[in-house]
Amino acid sequence: MTQKPDAALTAVFDHIDANRESFLSRVMDYVRYPSISAHDIGIGEVAALLVDMIGQIGLDVELIPTTGHPMVVGRWNKAPGAPTVLLYGHYDVQPPEPLEAWISPPFEPTIRDGRIYARGIGDNKGQHFAQLMALESHMKVHGRLPCNVIVLLEGEEEIGSPRIADFIATYRDRLKADFVVTSDGGMHPSGLPTMTYGVRGIATFELRVRHARRDVHSGNFGGVVPNPIWTLVHLLGTMKNAKGEITIEGLHDAVIPPGALEKAAAARLPLDLPGVMSELGLSRLDAPADRPFYDRLMFHPTLTINGLHGGYGGPGSKTVLPCEAFAKCDIRLIDNQTPADVLAKVEAHVKRHAPEVEFVYGHGMLPSRVPMDTPWAQILRDAITTAQGVAPLEYPSMGGSLPDYVFTKTLGIPAFVVPYANADEANHAPNENMKIDCFYNGIRTGAALLDRLGRPSM
Amino acid sequence: MTQKPDAALTAVFDHIDANRESFLSRVMDYVRYPSISAHDIGIGEVAALLVDMIGQIGLDVELIPTTGHPMVVGRWNKAPGAPTVLLYGHYDVQPPEPLEAWISPPFEPTIRDGRIYARGIGDNKGQHFAQLMALESHMKVHGRLPCNVIVLLEGEEEIGSPRIADFIATYRDRLKADFVVTSDGGMHPSGLPTMTYGVRGIATFELRVRHARRDVHSGNFGGVVPNPIWTLVHLLGTMKNAKGEITIEGLHDAVIPPGALEKAAAARLPLDLPGVMSELGLSRLDAPADRPFYDRLMFHPTLTINGLHGGYGGPGSKTVLPCEAFAKCDIRLIDNQTPADVLAKVEAHVKRHAPEVEFVYGHGMLPSRVPMDTPWAQILRDAITTAQGVAPLEYPSMGGSLPDYVFTKTLGIPAFVVPYANADEANHAPNENMKIDCFYNGIRTGAALLDRLGRPSM
Repeated sequence: MTQKPDAALTAVFDHIDANRESFLSRVMDYVRYPSISAHDIGIGEVAALLVDMIGQIGLDVELIPTTGHPMVVGRWNKAPGAPTVLLYGHYDVQPPEPLEAWISPPFEPTIRDGRIYARGIGDNKGQHFAQLMALESHMKVHGRLPCNVIVLLEGEEEIGSPRIADFIATYRDRLKADFVVTSDGGMHPSGLPTMTYGVRGIATFELRVRHARRDVHSGNFGGVVPNPIWTLVHLLGTMKNAKGEITIEGLHDAVIPPGALEKAAAARLPLDLPGVMSELGLSRLDAPADRPFYDRLMFHPTLTINGLHGGYGGPGSKTVLPCEAFAKCDIRLIDNQTPADVLAKVEAHVKRHAPEVEFVYGHGMLPSRVPMDTPWAQILRDAITTAQGVAPLEYPSMGGSLPDYVFTKTLGIPAFVVPYANADEANHAPNENMKIDCFYNGIRTGAALLDRLGRPSM
Repeated sequence: MTQKPDAALTAVFDHIDANRESFLSRVMDYVRYPSISAHDIGIGEVAALLVDMIGQIGLDVELIPTTGHPMVVGRWNKAPGAPTVLLYGHYDVQPPEPLEAWISPPFEPTIRDGRIYARGIGDNKGQHFAQLMALESHMKVHGRLPCNVIVLLEGEEEIGSPRIADFIATYRDRLKADFVVTSDGGMHPSGLPTMTYGVRGIATFELRVRHARRDVHSGNFGGVVPNPIWTLVHLLGTMKNAKGEITIEGLHDAVIPPGALEKAAAARLPLDLPGVMSELGLSRLDAPADRPFYDRLMFHPTLTINGLHGGYGGPGSKTVLPCEAFAKCDIRLIDNQTPADVLAKVEAHVKRHAPEVEFVYGHGMLPSRVPMDTPWAQILRDAITTAQGVAPLEYPSMGGSLPDYVFTKTLGIPAFVVPYANADEANHAPNENMKIDCFYNGIRTGAALLDRLGRPSM
């Protein structure tokens, strides 16, 4: 299964091996700087640090302002005829609170048991720093990169990437690449590398209903005054049936069913179903019962009621007939659904079945899916296998939503997620960490990818 | 329509007219004493006052202790061959707070615009004081009562009558009467007198469901982890359909449909539907749409969701898949439904349709309904008409629930509600009041009833 490195890559691997201590010490220096986007702390300093660092490596670099935090963009375009890879990451980190839960302070990187502990080490500084060290290693060993590279580091990922879509659309011409690799998130708990081809999109909405002007007595008015909770119950019952099928007219129209490759890939993924159910305390999976586990997360839209509230919720009973209720919902979208189309269909459904219910638009994000037979997937697969000695697990999609559509739809190029961090990196939590071995494997993987992209077979 | 009083009653009416000022001053003295059951204030003093007052009128009287506040029971049984009426009332009052909302202090009775303002004047001291003055007037004029009378005054009505059912069952033999009259609540807003033949019962329950051990991410687990709100939505959808029909198996089995008299009586009741809807801000009545207004409140059980809560309820959206939800419900019962039977049927329905949902029993109260053709109704109707010069509006039932079953089912005798207070008495609210005319009409009505019960036609 292992791909043997060529001589050029072997030399880079040797350089990486020889500089392990230095890379470790430098990444620990990097995460010492806080860059908390939510609190606007340290963003400018870390952006400047990156500009300096990327320039030192030998790339052209610019800091592109937005109406929020700036984008750091590095570029190497001196490999004519070779492909261009866009490496995306983010230099902002989550707030470190609660501080008292950290064993060592979040911005004093500390090594324990083969792991670096620091806020941002896994999410995402350690991961994009590994990419930068891969670039640096190639430059140091060969004086050049084997392919063209764009580095894009965002400073607002942890506050929801509010400006990435506009940025990508605006700078579309300067971000021309053949494909995108995002190294973020965690690998499989077994330690196997993974690559992911897509994400589900999302569309959120709220249903609100009010009947009477005020709450009334259930005896004096029960049977006379309509109950908004019943109105929601009956409306929601028309939107998804007890068999678990979403029954909103037209909602599935745009869904592209999985192809043979995707179905096969999902079926190949390891699954410890009893373990998952036991950890979550579940006695059954959600309806419909007959769907394979990963199909549920990858190939089907969902309609989740995030919350429903109306009337009395305190202890004991209160014989009230409430006057208002609301439900907050999200729909996870499958390529080629769009939030605009899906929300329009939900709104039309609501108007048809319960016109007295107010439909409130929420937010949305497009789904994204890369065909598994794209040649860039094979290159990435080869590079991971060469660098880590084992083939990656391949996820046709993840269940959650990330703005990958800015690459696949706005730029029109494939986008993959290849996490470098360990599964238990504790991102967004106290004691965030990255295994030192994962960090080195990340540098090796980045280096192998650059090498593979420079080989004439491309 | 007016029944002409006989000579004996005319004499009593004359006595009442001659003593208006004295009755007014005495009722104001009576409501000066607080007797707040919720705060255990003044109960003993007012109970003692009543014992003294009823004894002075000439009845046998006893204070019967309970595990809570005592019952005051007066008795006149020196009219052999004549019927016995049980006059029920309560001597406890609501707490007066918020004090700052009272124009005159709650326990300093004040007359303004033909009304007495004081806590308890309408609910219920002024009303049962009027009954006592009717008794006293008969005794003063004729030296005796024309029929047998039991006066039962409770001290815990405002805290839910927790001991009335046990008390009635225990003292059943000493409370033998032919029928019961409760003078409480308000007359029709037009000022017309009313008499009510029944109440709906009630049964409450809660549905609780939990699936996962904790809330999870709607992207990472949507489609995999069951959603307890959807479980409740689908279960509730099997309990009442969108047409407004309760679909719990067997729930209606015991319902006695209204007879011709009841339907006709309900149809005769005055109704300002546009006014009701406008006051409540309603654009439609509850489903089913084809039911007459009063039928909804009198002849049909209801299934009200008092509250349903699960998941996120804050501002904006949160893409959570919640792990637990609950619904609190009440069912208003129609004679001959019982809380035990109805709750057993709901529980069986829940077990059949959603065995993973926990069913939690709440509390219950039996319904009560007196046949409208009972001869006691005619007597009461005659008495009201004679005293007030106009026939009462007759309500086959009220929509709410009161423990009238203790009379109709435990004692097995008809029980009627004949309010003496004006509709805007502001009971349970600041500035509680009773129109002085209503107070006098109450005394006259009580006197006419006693007279009517003593006439040989009985």
